[in-house]
Amino acid sequence: MALDRDETSERVLEIAAGLIAEGGAANLKARTLSQKAGIAVGSIYNLFGDLDQLHGQVNMRLLDRLGDAGARTAATLNRSGVSDVRTRLLAFARTYLEFVQANATGWAALLAFSPSRMPEPAQATYDQRLDTLFELIAAELRLDKSLDMDDSRIRLAARVLWSSVHGIVINGAGRRQRSRQAEGVGDQIDMLVTTFLKGIDRRPA
Amino acid sequence: MALDRDETSERVLEIAAGLIAEGGAANLKARTLSQKAGIAVGSIYNLFGDLDQLHGQVNMRLLDRLGDAGARTAATLNRSGVSDVRTRLLAFARTYLEFVQANATGWAALLAFSPSRMPEPAQATYDQRLDTLFELIAAELRLDKSLDMDDSRIRLAARVLWSSVHGIVINGAGRRQRSRQAEGVGDQIDMLVTTFLKGIDRRPA
Repeated sequence: MALDRDETSERVLEIAAGLIAEGGAANLKARTLSQKAGIAVGSIYNLFGDLDQLHGQVNMRLLDRLGDAGARTAATLNRSGVSDVRTRLLAFARTYLEFVQANATGWAALLAFSPSRMPEPAQATYDQRLDTLFELIAAELRLDKSLDMDDSRIRLAARVLWSSVHGIVINGAGRRQRSRQAEGVGDQIDMLVTTFLKGIDRRPA
Repeated sequence: MALDRDETSERVLEIAAGLIAEGGAANLKARTLSQKAGIAVGSIYNLFGDLDQLHGQVNMRLLDRLGDAGARTAATLNRSGVSDVRTRLLAFARTYLEFVQANATGWAALLAFSPSRMPEPAQATYDQRLDTLFELIAAELRLDKSLDMDDSRIRLAARVLWSSVHGIVINGAGRRQRSRQAEGVGDQIDMLVTTFLKGIDRRPA
């Protein structure tokens, strides 16, 4: 190998991400990787253990990119001086929707991937990535001091909002390019966020 | 063929459902079907067009079974005289959770299936099945006369609740058999339903 271990890993990861984005997990094949990266099949296994673990690594990068997109949204909102939590959460939901649309195949492969196929330490890292994402939403809820929730409720609410928007987005995605798709992913997200926020108890002023 | 067309279709559908339940859509193979059903591969294509359409038919039956489970839940609630909408919706969410757990592989294959692979008339029938399911939830919301929503808002709210519970259930399912799974699918559903219902405007008494 002309490249060092890190550079080769990096290249294999990028090729793997491209293959999954093109054709899902079924398109991630050792022989194709080996040909495209110009290294032996055995080297891929040496570097990543097996294809499941390689897919897990690709997924973690996708989660990082989603986290980056969320951080950019927060920064934009801060710069624009938007403090209304409903408006902010709707911007996060839109970020998620756009991310899923832009990475449809890779995201579907991530959802179908079971982290339990990875060794324990990798699972923990995977969970950490998810927690970081939930924490972005929790941080938004903490901005509204009138919400009467302790921190464990706030974290639970962040998961509820996250999973609910996720459910709305993927149910909508299933109807992509079909007549009824317009029928309301945006409207559903708006109703969810607005109604849920209104339903949270407030502290007495 | 010793059996008539309907009986043969029925048998192929049952075998197909079993294959998908065992190993997902990738496990649905014409040759296996032909061997198990004792008919020629060509007959399967004659009956169903192609494997995508066969999978679509299997999915419609799964949706029907979910609808039946929902109807049974409504009947049980009615017999028990439960009129509180929150309690009723939580019972529906539990029905959904149990259904997804009992049919994990088949349900995952249904979610990964794109109805747009079927011809237009079959797509319409597929959408009808989904509408029937949403309608079960809308009917529950209509029971609470204090909710200040016209019928189009009620139908939108039914979709929001459906997709949100769906998102919570599948995010939870991804962590099945892992340490943090207990961490709250039930709690999340409870918070979602309770908070969402509280957030809906009420008519003045």
